[in-house]
Amino acid sequence: LSRAPQVEDVLAGQVKAIARLIRDIDDQSPRVQETLKQLYPHTGRAYLVGLTGSPGVGKSSLVDQLISRFRRQGLKVGVVAVDPTSPFSGGALLGDRIRMQHHATDPGVFIRSLATRGAFGGLTPSAPAVVQVLDAAGFERILIETVGVGQDEVDIVRLAHTTLVLTVPGLGDGIQAIKAGILEIADLLLVNKADQPGAERTLKELQGMLELNRLSGQEKAWWPGLLAVSARTGQGLDELDKALESHRRFLEEERPDLLAARTRLQVKELVLNLVQDRAKVRAERRLEGSPDWTSRLEEVVARRKDPYSLAEEILKEEFG
Amino acid sequence: LSRAPQVEDVLAGQVKAIARLIRDIDDQSPRVQETLKQLYPHTGRAYLVGLTGSPGVGKSSLVDQLISRFRRQGLKVGVVAVDPTSPFSGGALLGDRIRMQHHATDPGVFIRSLATRGAFGGLTPSAPAVVQVLDAAGFERILIETVGVGQDEVDIVRLAHTTLVLTVPGLGDGIQAIKAGILEIADLLLVNKADQPGAERTLKELQGMLELNRLSGQEKAWWPGLLAVSARTGQGLDELDKALESHRRFLEEERPDLLAARTRLQVKELVLNLVQDRAKVRAERRLEGSPDWTSRLEEVVARRKDPYSLAEEILKEEFG
Repeated sequence: LSRAPQVEDVLAGQVKAIARLIRDIDDQSPRVQETLKQLYPHTGRAYLVGLTGSPGVGKSSLVDQLISRFRRQGLKVGVVAVDPTSPFSGGALLGDRIRMQHHATDPGVFIRSLATRGAFGGLTPSAPAVVQVLDAAGFERILIETVGVGQDEVDIVRLAHTTLVLTVPGLGDGIQAIKAGILEIADLLLVNKADQPGAERTLKELQGMLELNRLSGQEKAWWPGLLAVSARTGQGLDELDKALESHRRFLEEERPDLLAARTRLQVKELVLNLVQDRAKVRAERRLEGSPDWTSRLEEVVARRKDPYSLAEEILKEEFG
Repeated sequence: LSRAPQVEDVLAGQVKAIARLIRDIDDQSPRVQETLKQLYPHTGRAYLVGLTGSPGVGKSSLVDQLISRFRRQGLKVGVVAVDPTSPFSGGALLGDRIRMQHHATDPGVFIRSLATRGAFGGLTPSAPAVVQVLDAAGFERILIETVGVGQDEVDIVRLAHTTLVLTVPGLGDGIQAIKAGILEIADLLLVNKADQPGAERTLKELQGMLELNRLSGQEKAWWPGLLAVSARTGQGLDELDKALESHRRFLEEERPDLLAARTRLQVKELVLNLVQDRAKVRAERRLEGSPDWTSRLEEVVARRKDPYSLAEEILKEEFG
């Protein structure tokens, strides 16, 4: 089997080749698939840490701190930041990224922002592929940063081994965070900006929630920890290192079965997503590709035909 | 053609039949499809208003006010609230809904919460179908409430004719809101809790953003308005009524072409989503349905095979 372009260079950790491949993935270039196929056997070595929380809780500053700390341990660090698509956001995002830019000249650090897809369909399709590339390229820790409290976040965080959920004092979202289902995805709950007023109260509220869940009699293999940190003053960051390490050891040494089940689910979802994407492309090509099918679509728009029947017709013609 | 069960009762606006059908949709019951097919020709009459914003900005209180105001105009009102899935959220959500419960005995009001799907795949699959049911049942205004700043929100809000984006003073998310791409989906930007400190500053920041976008030379058929409101004191709610009416008239009278293009896109996405869902079901059944295919999946988990090749094999076998 001949090597696809970029494979050798990516495996050797060459920054330019990695950047070019990720750009091709983001552009949905058709030639990347063969490269991804050949990189895949070299994945599975990185440890993936997800970071999520509402806008303004200081995710980027904490990522910046984590990069420095991983680097001091001699680990290569990749960062994938997923941001909602916005034609206006270039400037604001750039501002965030600038905070991390003092790592830009460090070849042991690779930072990349991905836009979420501005269309129906959820999950940034490129995020899992980009993580695979960084993994194959030898980055030992990969930080996946997402914003929001919606499905995107849950989906992307499911790529991670350990998920950090951030909040801040005075956001008034102790209850709201729980309400948004965020607690279920947290392996570690962080109150960032813990040097600000109200930190004690927020910590107590969250502690109360966690206790309540414990008392509810639910069985959980891992109960999320709670930490007060400050990316600005450095408060709690040593404890954060330890907590991360402790969760990693839990998964790898105590419960490799959980780790294996998670990997199987991720792989299955990836395969199903690839099948779905392909089915959508074929269906769309049909709908826009001939006057007959376009007029069937117009009939649905005019409500003289229903969308369920049209979908059945496409499935019958296209997929037998 | 014989009438599917529930069709007559839903068209007659019978609350019990509507509730049962929505429950069946949410449970993904197979027998709903025929009912939805027969309801579809009766849709397209409701005016859909989307409401979105971060947790804690007061979406439910504003929805409550809007219900009362539409009811005073003699209009029937449906509410679809989409909440992230959470096993812990029952209580908190209930709290929100309780604010609206004084409408519970009004037969001209129908309120329903839907959970987002707790899995890969984004958009609550049932939201468009539930909106169709309420539309066919004769609700003249349908409020679609979503939380978050992610893809979910964008997707669901795309169902609406007019989209309201809420923020509050002091959330510090003037910039953050823009960053999250929220401005692009807003037809009307609301600063809620405008009786609280900091409202002036937030309004000025947002006004500045809007001006900046106008100056950027972008062409836009509709520039989002900006309003200070308070669901608690009633401030700005008369102006909100007028602004809603003005956007509705803009779409229906001045730019029916925009309305038609939006409807075509919605219908096409609905059809494509139905095709994708079906493709996923078939692919999953194959992967879990025979020892041969299950072992191929395990090969991918073990990284001896790649997911791209497995997806191609499924497509070839299943879809020719």
